Amino acid sequence: MPKKIRLGILGGGAGSLIGELHRVAAHIHDNYQITSAVFSTNFEENKRFANKIDVPLHRIYKDFETLITEEMKFPTDQRIEVCAVLTPNFLHFPMVKKLLEHGFHVICEKPMTTTLEEAKILQKLHTKAGTVFALTHTYTGYPMVRQIREMIKAGDLGNIQKVDVQYYQGWINTVIHDKEKRDAVWRLDPKKAGMSSCMGDIGVHAFNMLEYTTGLKVTEVLSDFNYLYPDNYMDVDGTVLLRIGNYSKGVIRASQIATGEENGLTIAIYGEKAALKWEQEKPNFLYKLSDTEPIQIFKPGNAYNTDLSISGSKLPAGHPEGIFDAMANIYLGAAKAIRGQVYDSGEFPTMIDGVRGMEFITATVASNKAGNVWVPLKE
Amino acid sequence: MPKKIRLGILGGGAGSLIGELHRVAAHIHDNYQITSAVFSTNFEENKRFANKIDVPLHRIYKDFETLITEEMKFPTDQRIEVCAVLTPNFLHFPMVKKLLEHGFHVICEKPMTTTLEEAKILQKLHTKAGTVFALTHTYTGYPMVRQIREMIKAGDLGNIQKVDVQYYQGWINTVIHDKEKRDAVWRLDPKKAGMSSCMGDIGVHAFNMLEYTTGLKVTEVLSDFNYLYPDNYMDVDGTVLLRIGNYSKGVIRASQIATGEENGLTIAIYGEKAALKWEQEKPNFLYKLSDTEPIQIFKPGNAYNTDLSISGSKLPAGHPEGIFDAMANIYLGAAKAIRGQVYDSGEFPTMIDGVRGMEFITATVASNKAGNVWVPLKE
Amino acid sequence: MPKKIRLGILGGGAGSLIGELHRVAAHIHDNYQITSAVFSTNFEENKRFANKIDVPLHRIYKDFETLITEEMKFPTDQRIEVCAVLTPNFLHFPMVKKLLEHGFHVICEKPMTTTLEEAKILQKLHTKAGTVFALTHTYTGYPMVRQIREMIKAGDLGNIQKVDVQYYQGWINTVIHDKEKRDAVWRLDPKKAGMSSCMGDIGVHAFNMLEYTTGLKVTEVLSDFNYLYPDNYMDVDGTVLLRIGNYSKGVIRASQIATGEENGLTIAIYGEKAALKWEQEKPNFLYKLSDTEPIQIFKPGNAYNTDLSISGSKLPAGHPEGIFDAMANIYLGAAKAIRGQVYDSGEFPTMIDGVRGMEFITATVASNKAGNVWVPLKE
Amino acid sequence: MPKKIRLGILGGGAGSLIGELHRVAAHIHDNYQITSAVFSTNFEENKRFANKIDVPLHRIYKDFETLITEEMKFPTDQRIEVCAVLTPNFLHFPMVKKLLEHGFHVICEKPMTTTLEEAKILQKLHTKAGTVFALTHTYTGYPMVRQIREMIKAGDLGNIQKVDVQYYQGWINTVIHDKEKRDAVWRLDPKKAGMSSCMGDIGVHAFNMLEYTTGLKVTEVLSDFNYLYPDNYMDVDGTVLLRIGNYSKGVIRASQIATGEENGLTIAIYGEKAALKWEQEKPNFLYKLSDTEPIQIFKPGNAYNTDLSISGSKLPAGHPEGIFDAMANIYLGAAKAIRGQVYDSGEFPTMIDGVRGMEFITATVASNKAGNVWVPLKE
Repeated sequence: MPKKIRLGILGGGAGSLIGELHRVAAHIHDNYQITSAVFSTNFEENKRFANKIDVPLHRIYKDFETLITEEMKFPTDQRIEVCAVLTPNFLHFPMVKKLLEHGFHVICEKPMTTTLEEAKILQKLHTKAGTVFALTHTYTGYPMVRQIREMIKAGDLGNIQKVDVQYYQGWINTVIHDKEKRDAVWRLDPKKAGMSSCMGDIGVHAFNMLEYTTGLKVTEVLSDFNYLYPDNYMDVDGTVLLRIGNYSKGVIRASQIATGEENGLTIAIYGEKAALKWEQEKPNFLYKLSDTEPIQIFKPGNAYNTDLSISGSKLPAGHPEGIFDAMANIYLGAAKAIRGQVYDSGEFPTMIDGVRGMEFITATVASNKAGNVWVPLKE
Repeated sequence: MPKKIRLGILGGGAGSLIGELHRVAAHIHDNYQITSAVFSTNFEENKRFANKIDVPLHRIYKDFETLITEEMKFPTDQRIEVCAVLTPNFLHFPMVKKLLEHGFHVICEKPMTTTLEEAKILQKLHTKAGTVFALTHTYTGYPMVRQIREMIKAGDLGNIQKVDVQYYQGWINTVIHDKEKRDAVWRLDPKKAGMSSCMGDIGVHAFNMLEYTTGLKVTEVLSDFNYLYPDNYMDVDGTVLLRIGNYSKGVIRASQIATGEENGLTIAIYGEKAALKWEQEKPNFLYKLSDTEPIQIFKPGNAYNTDLSISGSKLPAGHPEGIFDAMANIYLGAAKAIRGQVYDSGEFPTMIDGVRGMEFITATVASNKAGNVWVPLKE
Repeated sequence: MPKKIRLGILGGGAGSLIGELHRVAAHIHDNYQITSAVFSTNFEENKRFANKIDVPLHRIYKDFETLITEEMKFPTDQRIEVCAVLTPNFLHFPMVKKLLEHGFHVICEKPMTTTLEEAKILQKLHTKAGTVFALTHTYTGYPMVRQIREMIKAGDLGNIQKVDVQYYQGWINTVIHDKEKRDAVWRLDPKKAGMSSCMGDIGVHAFNMLEYTTGLKVTEVLSDFNYLYPDNYMDVDGTVLLRIGNYSKGVIRASQIATGEENGLTIAIYGEKAALKWEQEKPNFLYKLSDTEPIQIFKPGNAYNTDLSISGSKLPAGHPEGIFDAMANIYLGAAKAIRGQVYDSGEFPTMIDGVRGMEFITATVASNKAGNVWVPLKE
Repeated sequence: MPKKIRLGILGGGAGSLIGELHRVAAHIHDNYQITSAVFSTNFEENKRFANKIDVPLHRIYKDFETLITEEMKFPTDQRIEVCAVLTPNFLHFPMVKKLLEHGFHVICEKPMTTTLEEAKILQKLHTKAGTVFALTHTYTGYPMVRQIREMIKAGDLGNIQKVDVQYYQGWINTVIHDKEKRDAVWRLDPKKAGMSSCMGDIGVHAFNMLEYTTGLKVTEVLSDFNYLYPDNYMDVDGTVLLRIGNYSKGVIRASQIATGEENGLTIAIYGEKAALKWEQEKPNFLYKLSDTEPIQIFKPGNAYNTDLSISGSKLPAGHPEGIFDAMANIYLGAAKAIRGQVYDSGEFPTMIDGVRGMEFITATVASNKAGNVWVPLKE
């Protein structure tokens, strides 16, 4: 029986939703133990939070630099093995960089970096480090998303001819129409939010979902963004036309002003032999369509699913799995990889997904800026 | 109590699905009587069919020319008042032209013509004729589609900021991959099917749905078509980026290779105050979303709906209405107009919808041909 | 090509919803021609309505007696062949009786009679007459209900072990709590509404749906009614435990005080091999469940359906069918029977269904009255 | 900031699904720390499992007796505060008894006991002990189930006139038809499974859901069980007629032979003013129906929900919650109670629910045995 993996955490302290999500995900399946952390830049707050969640205080550090320095002093069988990076986006790059340079495994929140250049630097470092890098595109952790990937890999859809991915949210509708409210939202401040709001935050999830499930690569994009007001400088809505491989086309539709939508990520994949459709808000139902047969609904935990899809299910079929289960499956896959077990390439998004995501964001921004022209994504 | 309206029918004979749809729609609400017809170009077949459906044979004509000549000999109170044009697409123009020139009301299947030029000629003639012209974009006849139109007109959504319309079918997937089968499909033969397959047949329905429900005008389009094979010359899939009015953007997604989809027309309209979502295959459920309230589901026949939505419902709420009811509502609206009653402008698609539809098809074809550039639609 | 069947109509005049439903249903598929009628007991009104819907006035009669007398004077090839009985419930018995005695085919609204005794008298007369008798349990006309019947007949479910049928409406909730409003509702007046409100009006539909689809016979019932108020004398809600054949059990749940429900008829049938589930308000989706396979959704008009299910579909799959289509299918089946064609026994509910329905109502009333005890239904 | 609550665990060791569910639920919200345990009756296995999940071995005991003895030696600020009982059903009674006698709080899996008598003994002991007792009817932990309870408490439905609860599973269909397979299932062995299979395992969940959400008490039941085969001695299906309070009626339908159903717990509650409907397999959608308004869909995490419903949501609306979140909410409520905070009476099912559940099972078994007669439930 393997011992638990020693996990360090950066960010995700008191009141952090993403912090709770990662901690619970690490806990499910009993693979990780939080050993060290910098939950907060405020050292007192940091320790108070560690105390609250019962992480021993002697490996709670005042900052990231100290964490690295101190952990390196431990022998390898006591040192943290993997570090989860949950800090604000602009800190992902320097932290992951240093972690990789010191030979740690990394579990990183998306977006991996703020620029494509940074992403490529990390990619090189990662190749050199040879450690495990998992990017938490959480939605790929759902059992039925994994089922899609496996069915496509097995050829159930034949050649894929069309992919349509949607990610619609409405929350920016509540602030966009009022200049004062709008100015108070950091995602709409170009200085804080980077090059893109809608594509950078959610369009990239849609893109990752497409490449994760189909195994195909988007080769070119043509995007049209909507800012809604002349004095709003961040995209809050956009549609992206896609060329995928040599054969198929597709579209990514993303919006933060789709009034009333909560977290409307959906994907529809049409192949020569069959099609698959899935919605994040009803994650336990996967629809298979064909020319000649009744529609089929696949549900998690059933023996007719693939091993990868079933492996994360903890209760009998019919007990709904949610977003925590999805993230837990990513942590489960990372644990297998960290322990050097043979693992399926689809158990978690990797460094390649991180680089691809930054290429996508960069290309869609460029396309929109250049007047809605085709922009290639490099392999 | 008004007498029934005298209706002539062109096309739609034995074995014609569209013929049965129109006849039943004309029958529901008891407003029309089929008086004259040219159901078929084969005169014997024509008479045999008339006999079968109990239309008196003395006003069954051997061809369209004869119908016009002979009907004009009747005094106006015996002559047909309106003629339904259900013939192959290329015949719509000459027939409607002549009908308008002789002062008849017209109910015409879509597409109205095969070119924009023809559409504009009809528009001029129609203005001169001053008769009623109804274009049977059938899906606008559903009670909940009319409810959308009325709610938007009443301001329930506020400014509309995004519209997303989908029309996905899969039937061409069954033939496209086999050159022999493909060659046997008239819609994929440029000589027979006109300038577009996917946009011309179903994209235009999506476009009409958008303009019918929102009351907005699409000003520019940028389209990307998919032909799937180099030796296929008709579009079988396409995505169209939209600029709508001065403010909002949108997308029309249409496909005939969306494997397994049957008749997947859907619309989602996002406004500043609320959003509305509807699907043709579940036509009796209309969803209203907002930032702060629970989702609402509107169903036909309830007193909370608008008059236009309720007016066509024949049974108490909970008795599903289908495609025949939708078409019947268009015939009902046309009947009111023919009788000169005051009617709501939304009771049926008109000549303007016909011209707009041809502008849309023409512009999307031009955009795709020119390399996916923006092409304006003229008012 | 067969000539249209000469149809007489009793009741269903101006403003009658059921009248319009029957007329349209008779019109769809082009099998019937309304030849004679007594639409109303007011002769002027009767003629005015006939004139409106273009039924020739010379065979519009002042009352039912006259209709019989005058029609019998016509030679058989001009006389009406079938008569639709849409009059108030208490008139069904005398009218159907006389029609059968004179050798007419009959299409009768449910409930067939007001007592079981009357039903049995009709049954004997019908055996003697040898004509076609169709009872319009409309919901059995839906394509997917017919698909259920055929799949069960083909053994797809194996032995059936449990059946659960629901018919929930809410309309009586709007009147039951106010004595004055309640007293104005004829269905709640024992003198006008017969022995039962909820079971008599809708429970019997649920019962018929069970026997129609499964081909099984309910052998015993135990019912518990709810009257809600001591001074309300008609059942407005009831649950009925069922023994079905020698093997399976089931339950019928019916209510007119299920607040907010519109027309919630649903059926779930669980067999040894598989299960089928269907809802009237989403009639175009049939769910098949099994122990080991993904859920399947059957939709009308697809080639994978049985002939009986497909035969009534008029447009390609994906064009929703509604309540008018369901009734039209019953009229279609009756037309085939009237013409003496070989027809499937499941094309319309028959005299046997009418008698069974009255047995069910009678037995549930008896069971409730006797203190919720088992009461057998005779074969 | 409160320290974590010291939690002991009985049962739920390696390979136990329920064990994982409880551990994760205790972990979410950061309120508990597993301090002591007897995961398994095999001491080696017990320690191996504790080691795997990083519970310190010095408080892993060889059996329950030892746990009590040893824990009582600790001062109260080190002793476990609460013990989770996840052992086979027949052990619940002796363990809970002893725990209460020693002043511990208890979190107990359902069914609380195997007989009503045992339940009443525990109830008395509990009153005396004055500690917190939470019964894990997990499904009451869903945010939308809590929303139902609160809306009813606030009077949104007015007087409740009808309640319909279903709990359909199909898993016994896979064994019931084969005597050999059937004999291998402990739930179908009267010696091991107690007085009831279907009612005892899932009917009681349905019953608890009814009383938890409505706040009403079922006063009488009349049940009809199905055993399917004469040589099967445990109920695998049953319908229970209900009298609720003085006014309303209802029905509980439970089955383990509803072929293909996974975990089909649903509830529909009809009140004078409105109705609420919910399904366990789509737990994040709550439907409100009324006579006059569009249907409303409530979703978790939105500000329009009640505090109790929102309190357990960890991520923004639109991130699906599943069965783990439901159980976590029960643990959250128990934590509040253990800490002596003021808490809503609806935060977890209590001893009263446990006694009521045993009364329900006992009464339904008695009713069925006596030939389907009414049997009262005592308060």
